[in-house]
Amino acid sequence: MQNFMYHIPTKVLFGRGEIRKLGGEIKAYGSKALLVYGGGSIKKIGLYDTIVNILNENEIPFMELGGVDPNPRITSVEEGVKICREKDIDVILPVGGGSVIDCGKLIAAGTRSGSDDIWGIVTGKVPIREVLPVITVLTLAAAGSEMDTSAIISNMETHEKTGPSNPGMRPKAAIMDPEYTFTVSKRQTAAGTADMISHVLEVYFNNNRGAYLQSRFAEAVLKTCVEYGHRAYNTPNDYEARANLMWAGSWAINGLLSKGAPVSWSCHAMEHELSAYYDIVHGEGLAILVPHWLRHMLKEENVWKYVEYGVNVWGIDPSLPEMEIANKAIEATADYFKAMNLPSALREVGIDESKFDIMAERAGKGLEKAFVAMDAGDVKEIYRKSL
Amino acid sequence: MQNFMYHIPTKVLFGRGEIRKLGGEIKAYGSKALLVYGGGSIKKIGLYDTIVNILNENEIPFMELGGVDPNPRITSVEEGVKICREKDIDVILPVGGGSVIDCGKLIAAGTRSGSDDIWGIVTGKVPIREVLPVITVLTLAAAGSEMDTSAIISNMETHEKTGPSNPGMRPKAAIMDPEYTFTVSKRQTAAGTADMISHVLEVYFNNNRGAYLQSRFAEAVLKTCVEYGHRAYNTPNDYEARANLMWAGSWAINGLLSKGAPVSWSCHAMEHELSAYYDIVHGEGLAILVPHWLRHMLKEENVWKYVEYGVNVWGIDPSLPEMEIANKAIEATADYFKAMNLPSALREVGIDESKFDIMAERAGKGLEKAFVAMDAGDVKEIYRKSL
Repeated sequence: MQNFMYHIPTKVLFGRGEIRKLGGEIKAYGSKALLVYGGGSIKKIGLYDTIVNILNENEIPFMELGGVDPNPRITSVEEGVKICREKDIDVILPVGGGSVIDCGKLIAAGTRSGSDDIWGIVTGKVPIREVLPVITVLTLAAAGSEMDTSAIISNMETHEKTGPSNPGMRPKAAIMDPEYTFTVSKRQTAAGTADMISHVLEVYFNNNRGAYLQSRFAEAVLKTCVEYGHRAYNTPNDYEARANLMWAGSWAINGLLSKGAPVSWSCHAMEHELSAYYDIVHGEGLAILVPHWLRHMLKEENVWKYVEYGVNVWGIDPSLPEMEIANKAIEATADYFKAMNLPSALREVGIDESKFDIMAERAGKGLEKAFVAMDAGDVKEIYRKSL
Repeated sequence: MQNFMYHIPTKVLFGRGEIRKLGGEIKAYGSKALLVYGGGSIKKIGLYDTIVNILNENEIPFMELGGVDPNPRITSVEEGVKICREKDIDVILPVGGGSVIDCGKLIAAGTRSGSDDIWGIVTGKVPIREVLPVITVLTLAAAGSEMDTSAIISNMETHEKTGPSNPGMRPKAAIMDPEYTFTVSKRQTAAGTADMISHVLEVYFNNNRGAYLQSRFAEAVLKTCVEYGHRAYNTPNDYEARANLMWAGSWAINGLLSKGAPVSWSCHAMEHELSAYYDIVHGEGLAILVPHWLRHMLKEENVWKYVEYGVNVWGIDPSLPEMEIANKAIEATADYFKAMNLPSALREVGIDESKFDIMAERAGKGLEKAFVAMDAGDVKEIYRKSL
């Protein structure tokens, strides 16, 4: 096990009706809020009204930034920063899924950055110093942004999708009420589950056999996704399924699973290029790539990890030959995605090979420390097989 | 899944040589430390000198309280509070295992309590208000006190072993270097592993099937104890084994596993009476009680939980009859303890039935919410079978 620092101070208020505690949490950190949200689903489910009432009852003045897109745009961040600076906002309140929360985090990092180059904060050119406190209300089990330090933002002009990680951007508190996800569409439920599974697999597939506890924790999250992904997909109002998926989504990427072992985000790096050029649904891109990525890496010398995965997550008979277990595990993963009608080929989401070179070149950087060291050639090969 | 609040802000610095960061952690919270330790093992392994050097190099004045006993005494806490008050100590630095850390936590809670009734803080009579920050250096994988909110203290005059839980007592930072546990004796390694297993089993055996992720997390910790307990017992200098046990010990009881399901500490309640009257090794008392507790609770209607335990932790063939899986799982647990030469009967640790009535009466309080509701009669029955 490698040395590590573990520090996840986010306070989680989990379960039905926990929103009632929102006022107290905001007031613990600030006095004037920016309410950030997406396309209006929070209005449909009544959550917007609930929150506005809470803010009013607690006499917390607030401004609004609505309309944040999936694969959130830098333009939304810039708009938010402008509002926060003009109105002296001191706490950011993103209400939504990962896109909204990521946008909120960057606004939090940008407001007091002393720079007008907000895209520079996203790329790391402008250092992150003071970050406004972020309090989130989660409405989608997927990205895990509610408990982690990262924010991913898209620049549609330059086809870049990237973002920084900073401890200051980790939300101070997260309100997680599984009922808010009852109305998440089948398509987004499936994509969110694929995102979570990919988060775990990308850190679980590492070469450190000694980080044993972390691998078992990873399997716990994977088993939970497998157990409840289909159930939430088929019965959207199943509280138990939504609750387990929501909590699993946070632990998939809050950092626990990656402590003590080398980490390299490979599928996410490959998918971010797809989204940056084609603006596809992130989890759908991952569902396409993950099985091909697993197949591409499989070798005699690393089959042990696939065996762990197959036996411990998918319950495959451990007495079978190792390569057979590995291939069965990969097929089980692919079948699991297909059963939720997730796409299994790039063509299905409108992607051809015309941009493979540039996307592979960009994604291939930094993958030399992956479970199997990869470069642009490997990425292109995975894209090709995913066509 | 029940509603819950999750908030574990302890910063963990894990791995070889992380002690070098101690000075910075202390200075983040205070300017004058109380170094608390036990019987001197930290002097034997050189850790005492290392810490004194760090404190001196960082110009952090400090006082010392050594000689804290296993099953720490209220008298040690009182002594520590006296020193802290007289010398204006503002940060507590326990270096040791759970006993030392628990003693340090109570000193932290007592110093600014405004009361001289320190035992009143332990029993809850005197409320906990301001708690001094606690920074710990862990030298034993067992109690999990390094990341939790509790402290258990013994009063040998009144034969009471009890303690409060308060978020303020959760250590701000914990330095966890597995090498410090290389010299832990076989006996203490075994007892520590039994303590960890008991922590997990007591929350894992609950009636909420819907807290699925938590049950899988619990199995991850249990599998880690099973994998590495014997290994650390047999090869004390095995870093991987010591590291996994140390990290598992923190997660066994830091709170994650018990979120979302009803919790009732039953074996610990029963064992605390044994320690309070006979001053036995805590983990040895648990190793005796746990198998009998599991046998006592087993019924047709709750066998499903034993099946989960047997199949997922012990790898027992799921096609066997359920009751057979359950009994095999209990025997596997008992055998696991025996293989580390842990006692399996109360007589082995000098306990007869003379105090069963008073101990059962005390331990039986509050067990009506256990996996199987229990009272003093049940506890006495378990004590009897454990003779």
